[in-house]
Amino acid sequence: MKWDEIDQQVCSVARALSVVGERWTLLILRDAFMGTRRFDKFQHNLGITRHRLSERLGKLVEQGVLTKVPYHDRPVRYEYRLTRKGLALYPVLMTLAQWGDEWMDGGEGAPIEYVHQSCGKRTQPVLTCSECNEPLKPENVSPQMGPVLKHYVAQLEGRGEAIPDMPALMRSAGE
Amino acid sequence: MKWDEIDQQVCSVARALSVVGERWTLLILRDAFMGTRRFDKFQHNLGITRHRLSERLGKLVEQGVLTKVPYHDRPVRYEYRLTRKGLALYPVLMTLAQWGDEWMDGGEGAPIEYVHQSCGKRTQPVLTCSECNEPLKPENVSPQMGPVLKHYVAQLEGRGEAIPDMPALMRSAGE
Repeated sequence: MKWDEIDQQVCSVARALSVVGERWTLLILRDAFMGTRRFDKFQHNLGITRHRLSERLGKLVEQGVLTKVPYHDRPVRYEYRLTRKGLALYPVLMTLAQWGDEWMDGGEGAPIEYVHQSCGKRTQPVLTCSECNEPLKPENVSPQMGPVLKHYVAQLEGRGEAIPDMPALMRSAGE
Repeated sequence: MKWDEIDQQVCSVARALSVVGERWTLLILRDAFMGTRRFDKFQHNLGITRHRLSERLGKLVEQGVLTKVPYHDRPVRYEYRLTRKGLALYPVLMTLAQWGDEWMDGGEGAPIEYVHQSCGKRTQPVLTCSECNEPLKPENVSPQMGPVLKHYVAQLEGRGEAIPDMPALMRSAGE
């Protein structure tokens, strides 16, 4: 399987990575969440080539994660703003940041601290269950097949074929 | 800045991506969370070259995300297991999966559903505040400089230099 085919997997992690899994893309989005909007500013802060930045921003616009909004008339100039789909990536960036804070801080403490304005306290993000509000831990969460995978497995069974494990299913269901 | 220098940024997102930001790495970890442990199984499920898989697994072992454990004596064969540092990436994978479920399902529903065994219900992960348990939203969370960035800004001020915005600070503080 090639990287640019991973969106064909019946897997939400693979599909998400088909949009945000390129080098630099999540750092572009980090900067966008910090308020960066203009091409030159992204370029200055990230220090990547204009060509690469342009390619990454273009893909994020195409995928509806960023939107291009004119901020100057003559000549027309655009800035990049997070859409609802883009803002919905906030938990991905916060969980990456938290993992980096905990495991990659080199003993120097978190580079950035977060204050939750609603309660006024310094906060850490906690991933919790939408139903009981308890923290979600891998040992207490069972993945189960959704409708598409169930349908695919029923087809395999109908043909008398062996049912592979979940990672293999997610891949082959998309082929 | 080159991609293999991003761990020098004073930024936990950049440091996290220096470990898990390569193509395929998060899909390898997805499979590990689903129970995959052996090289041939990873290779079969991901369909990437043995060379690339070996490089990715080697880096994850080197970074302490996976550990190699012998499961067969003669010849010695190893399997790969998530360490505590690796298990701590669970929220990153779950938030990616949830974003993919919400925004990339092509109208077919979530490929995989999650049951929280503690409460017995189908669950969605919610990112909440460690202090007040309310959901964390970007508009209600203020990033603030931690000790290292504060120290760096004090140095800039001491030299009478301009203080750049946060994304630029995170980059230049590591140079």
